[in-house]
Amino acid sequence: MNVQVAVNGYGVIGKRVADAVRSMPDMELVGVADVAPDWRIRTAAELGITVYAATETAGTAMREAGVPVAGTLTDLLDQVDVVVDTTPKRVAATNLPTYQAAGVKVVLQGGESHTTTGHSFVAQANYASALGRDMTRVVSCNTTSIVRVLGALQDAGLLARARGVLIRRATDPSESHEGGIMNTMVPEAAIPSHQGPDAKTVLPELDVVTIAAKAAHTQTHNHFWTLQLTRPADREDVLQALRSAPRIAFIRMSDGLTALNTTVELMRDLGRPRGDMWEVALWEDVLSVDGDEAYLTYQVNNEAIVVPETIDAIRALTSTARDAATSIGLTDEVLGMRQEFLAAAGLPSGRTAQG
Amino acid sequence: MNVQVAVNGYGVIGKRVADAVRSMPDMELVGVADVAPDWRIRTAAELGITVYAATETAGTAMREAGVPVAGTLTDLLDQVDVVVDTTPKRVAATNLPTYQAAGVKVVLQGGESHTTTGHSFVAQANYASALGRDMTRVVSCNTTSIVRVLGALQDAGLLARARGVLIRRATDPSESHEGGIMNTMVPEAAIPSHQGPDAKTVLPELDVVTIAAKAAHTQTHNHFWTLQLTRPADREDVLQALRSAPRIAFIRMSDGLTALNTTVELMRDLGRPRGDMWEVALWEDVLSVDGDEAYLTYQVNNEAIVVPETIDAIRALTSTARDAATSIGLTDEVLGMRQEFLAAAGLPSGRTAQG
Amino acid sequence: MNVQVAVNGYGVIGKRVADAVRSMPDMELVGVADVAPDWRIRTAAELGITVYAATETAGTAMREAGVPVAGTLTDLLDQVDVVVDTTPKRVAATNLPTYQAAGVKVVLQGGESHTTTGHSFVAQANYASALGRDMTRVVSCNTTSIVRVLGALQDAGLLARARGVLIRRATDPSESHEGGIMNTMVPEAAIPSHQGPDAKTVLPELDVVTIAAKAAHTQTHNHFWTLQLTRPADREDVLQALRSAPRIAFIRMSDGLTALNTTVELMRDLGRPRGDMWEVALWEDVLSVDGDEAYLTYQVNNEAIVVPETIDAIRALTSTARDAATSIGLTDEVLGMRQEFLAAAGLPSGRTAQG
Amino acid sequence: MNVQVAVNGYGVIGKRVADAVRSMPDMELVGVADVAPDWRIRTAAELGITVYAATETAGTAMREAGVPVAGTLTDLLDQVDVVVDTTPKRVAATNLPTYQAAGVKVVLQGGESHTTTGHSFVAQANYASALGRDMTRVVSCNTTSIVRVLGALQDAGLLARARGVLIRRATDPSESHEGGIMNTMVPEAAIPSHQGPDAKTVLPELDVVTIAAKAAHTQTHNHFWTLQLTRPADREDVLQALRSAPRIAFIRMSDGLTALNTTVELMRDLGRPRGDMWEVALWEDVLSVDGDEAYLTYQVNNEAIVVPETIDAIRALTSTARDAATSIGLTDEVLGMRQEFLAAAGLPSGRTAQG
Repeated sequence: MNVQVAVNGYGVIGKRVADAVRSMPDMELVGVADVAPDWRIRTAAELGITVYAATETAGTAMREAGVPVAGTLTDLLDQVDVVVDTTPKRVAATNLPTYQAAGVKVVLQGGESHTTTGHSFVAQANYASALGRDMTRVVSCNTTSIVRVLGALQDAGLLARARGVLIRRATDPSESHEGGIMNTMVPEAAIPSHQGPDAKTVLPELDVVTIAAKAAHTQTHNHFWTLQLTRPADREDVLQALRSAPRIAFIRMSDGLTALNTTVELMRDLGRPRGDMWEVALWEDVLSVDGDEAYLTYQVNNEAIVVPETIDAIRALTSTARDAATSIGLTDEVLGMRQEFLAAAGLPSGRTAQG
Repeated sequence: MNVQVAVNGYGVIGKRVADAVRSMPDMELVGVADVAPDWRIRTAAELGITVYAATETAGTAMREAGVPVAGTLTDLLDQVDVVVDTTPKRVAATNLPTYQAAGVKVVLQGGESHTTTGHSFVAQANYASALGRDMTRVVSCNTTSIVRVLGALQDAGLLARARGVLIRRATDPSESHEGGIMNTMVPEAAIPSHQGPDAKTVLPELDVVTIAAKAAHTQTHNHFWTLQLTRPADREDVLQALRSAPRIAFIRMSDGLTALNTTVELMRDLGRPRGDMWEVALWEDVLSVDGDEAYLTYQVNNEAIVVPETIDAIRALTSTARDAATSIGLTDEVLGMRQEFLAAAGLPSGRTAQG
Repeated sequence: MNVQVAVNGYGVIGKRVADAVRSMPDMELVGVADVAPDWRIRTAAELGITVYAATETAGTAMREAGVPVAGTLTDLLDQVDVVVDTTPKRVAATNLPTYQAAGVKVVLQGGESHTTTGHSFVAQANYASALGRDMTRVVSCNTTSIVRVLGALQDAGLLARARGVLIRRATDPSESHEGGIMNTMVPEAAIPSHQGPDAKTVLPELDVVTIAAKAAHTQTHNHFWTLQLTRPADREDVLQALRSAPRIAFIRMSDGLTALNTTVELMRDLGRPRGDMWEVALWEDVLSVDGDEAYLTYQVNNEAIVVPETIDAIRALTSTARDAATSIGLTDEVLGMRQEFLAAAGLPSGRTAQG
Repeated sequence: MNVQVAVNGYGVIGKRVADAVRSMPDMELVGVADVAPDWRIRTAAELGITVYAATETAGTAMREAGVPVAGTLTDLLDQVDVVVDTTPKRVAATNLPTYQAAGVKVVLQGGESHTTTGHSFVAQANYASALGRDMTRVVSCNTTSIVRVLGALQDAGLLARARGVLIRRATDPSESHEGGIMNTMVPEAAIPSHQGPDAKTVLPELDVVTIAAKAAHTQTHNHFWTLQLTRPADREDVLQALRSAPRIAFIRMSDGLTALNTTVELMRDLGRPRGDMWEVALWEDVLSVDGDEAYLTYQVNNEAIVVPETIDAIRALTSTARDAATSIGLTDEVLGMRQEFLAAAGLPSGRTAQG
């Protein structure tokens, strides 16, 4: 029988996880829970997703707004093996007792702290250690991208030290009518920022420091890295290490993909659902190696990148797939993840590290 | 046999027209032509669309960039009944002799002048007069929205005079890494702006004046109208007239759809291809009537709104559908156009004026 | 003896009023009061302005932050004839009893309601009725601009009806690192917006309706008007009426002043303090008249436009100047307000309606 | 007799250099030359600056537009000792023969290449080597900031290696109605970017690599640095080295200066002309030192930072001041440059490294 899944919190991440769960052959989305009665949750109903109210009060408001409510969060938890909590930070922490009382396994998101679950998850790095656990935390979009890229170089024995500048989008497109920044940048008030230490919850051996700031756009993060290598290397060595890892796609300035918005448009053009890019998009022709130093920049779709990790985390907790390669392979095939978005001359597009 | 269609110019409009043609049961997309060898045209290849080079020079560059090129524009025109020209303004005008030499019917876009074709097209207003013509011009996104909304009120005998302020997006998302405006607004240098007179090429009886400006966003236009009615009316009279027309959808501030970005997100959530909204989205609960004056505001997805009109124009020129209702009905059903995006309590969503 | 003035609230408006009071020959700024201990109030100290704490708690925090605090708000009120309250909306209303207990006259800002003071003020419209009153309310930036422009046309007997669309800046430049909107527009949820009725608190005879929205920029509002005239008129008639009124400056697209940011830069270039534009900047060459209708657009510097009105309001309450022309003339001369920002060929620049 | 100065190109930099020259006690601005007849050059006339036409054709257009033109560029050059060329990149290179024919010394800006002049200039780094030369190049805003900050650490013997990420403003505020970027970031297509090598034209010993990108704001650059020190150091060691250098000001998140726009506003509040910040603004409380690594971020006002350097370059070429300290001291005193913008508790504000 397929894994029965609940999603609590139908927001930017929750709605994408719900879509992905529905598309997986070994999972079933029993329903989603939320508290708001507005257009957001009503799109779930439009998509044929069963909606539950996270609280009694919310249920009343949702019913009054015309949202078809199937029951309470407790009703939903009774039917599932695992719940993915994608509620806002402060809510998520308080939900744990409810989940534990219901006896369901729990996937939290990166807004929660490592200590809450005792395990932080990036599929390609530590799937095995999550097998059969009661809960794990899928790290944030920024941290996930760091683990994918730096982890690939560490696995290849190339990485000595990484220093990164992370320029984040200011707010999400769906929220950009309030709470945005305008015509400015906002540096984080302290260096190092939290993402470097957070990456070490997954890859403890990393020597990584991050500096972060917000810029005045709504779509995707842009990371810039200076890497100290373990030895003088060729550019091809570094690229080969990156190509061996899953979930890193290569884009090129020379193709006209010269800015964050062009890649966003490429995803729309390729028919991706919601325009999502689950891969880290690394500029292949910007990557530069000089002796034992490497410099690179990539783009992180913060709305989407943790979705495949969340799917893998569900499998790990429920032991549905025995190893990372199996789970990643299935997730990536179903979603249609790619290492190349555009066919090169004489080459098929979309080849992946596995293929 | 299905109508054989070519699209010349695979840009913001062209790629959407290509998608729509492919989805129609009575049409076949033979191929698209373009001049640029970058990622844009390569997405066509990824989608399985046959690509032609608009010029010999372009063909060479495209082949060198690895784009599979099936032939020249002339080769493409030889195989089709109708060509949709979605090239930039200055190019489109020069293509007409080529099209005429090939003996194909031609659909131009709103960037061209009315006199070039002698006929300007909005399906619900003047489909019949385009039947069997050699060419027509689908008016611009702004003008199309004006004709839909004001035409509906004119048809109901309600509209005496319309004065509108059109706040346009500054540039398209795919082009926003160059040529945008930042932290400013740019009013058009003359009043009236061209959209009012342009609407009269379709509805000559309209008494309409427009004032236009660009604002610092990339997604969708926002129109604000003051309408002199022919008589004192109730709000419900005006709404009823608007509901009787196709391709106007109703949204509500009370649902949380309070800004342009929320509607854009709604389209992504509903799974629309490229997040497109082909309907004019009119705020139902903002519409206000005071005696013989009405005030309303709506949102125009400039990337998408002319796509259904273009499909209908193809049918009109080729006499594939005998009347507007038939063509509009088919187009809207296949695309999934709706009058309501969200189910109301006790009501099905997505009902249309036809349904 | 000069009028002794206090400013309570050293924010966007308060700091400008403080500057203006200091520059007037018949006024003296005794001090400013505030509650925040951050860089904003510390600039007052840098400028040599005496700082008071609006509350005891604030005083402690300010002293701890190194702000030199001269006393409490009560201490400040004891020394002045009039207080200008430029605190945020919710605070201002609660301050009235304090002011009344201190026996000082009060100038409130447009965020407060008309009923709070029973009198709303725009110098050129109703200075006389404020003479000797205990308090008045300087209407908001948007309303002030409406009264200036529509009032000028009403005075000339030209205006029958005015319908305006007001596109507002989303937030102020100094606050744009939080609370802004990004890549969207936010229409107000109801039509008419409040500015039309608000203008009638000053000019009760106006037939005016306004529609408002926020756009994604931080600098200045942009108003677009359709005016029904009392009779068919020439463009020069309308211009003459506008030129006869104070505090309207004329700009031209033909000079390259084609967007909101260009006028902002012009103010910086002319050496205006803080880059302020106290005048309504009306595009002379965009203004269009067709029979008995006129169309125009102008720019409103929301940070600055109410400053001269506030100065005049101080004079009116304290009967320092006996009539509007005297007060306006002095204010405008000292600030350097102009009807033309750039000398025309053969003409001096800076001529005003009075000159 | 004072140094007689011409400015060719009255744009973003040129108009500021003109202002600064006029304020210096040992210089006289004879006039400015330009080619455009629009509002920009007309503000020079408003400010009482004598205007020359850079070409005959330009002169005709300027006179027709009502700009009072005193003569040609040649007429202007005949009267001066030195010309500051602030024309756009492609124009500046072609002007050199004209300057040389006129026998005037030349200060170019950072858009030109080092080889054009054979000398690149930052006052605190290499004033002496420019003494009496015929020409020099004031390096760009980004490079100037790098030389100031890294030079200070190098002088203190602290700096081994610097790796920086430079997030640039997309376009200037006065140009932001065209050519901007919207809702995106644009990484430079190659790493390293040119600023690192450019800094070595002034400080050849630097080990510096830069990565650059544009973000969606118009005001000021934001640099982020990872510094390898020559030895483990305390945070205070690094700060002391920075405090010993001129033209670096210290700001603090703890004062509420948390984003680029807040510092811009601070300059307006302090009454700076055009809101200019000639200093590098370094966040003192963000600077972090960990063993032999330091991390810091600062803000660069690209419109203003090279103005004091240009003044010093004029003095160096004309041998008006014999050493850097004398010239810098005079420039900074006249402009009112500061090391602290806000008085600390018990400390005077505005103290400089010299004071």
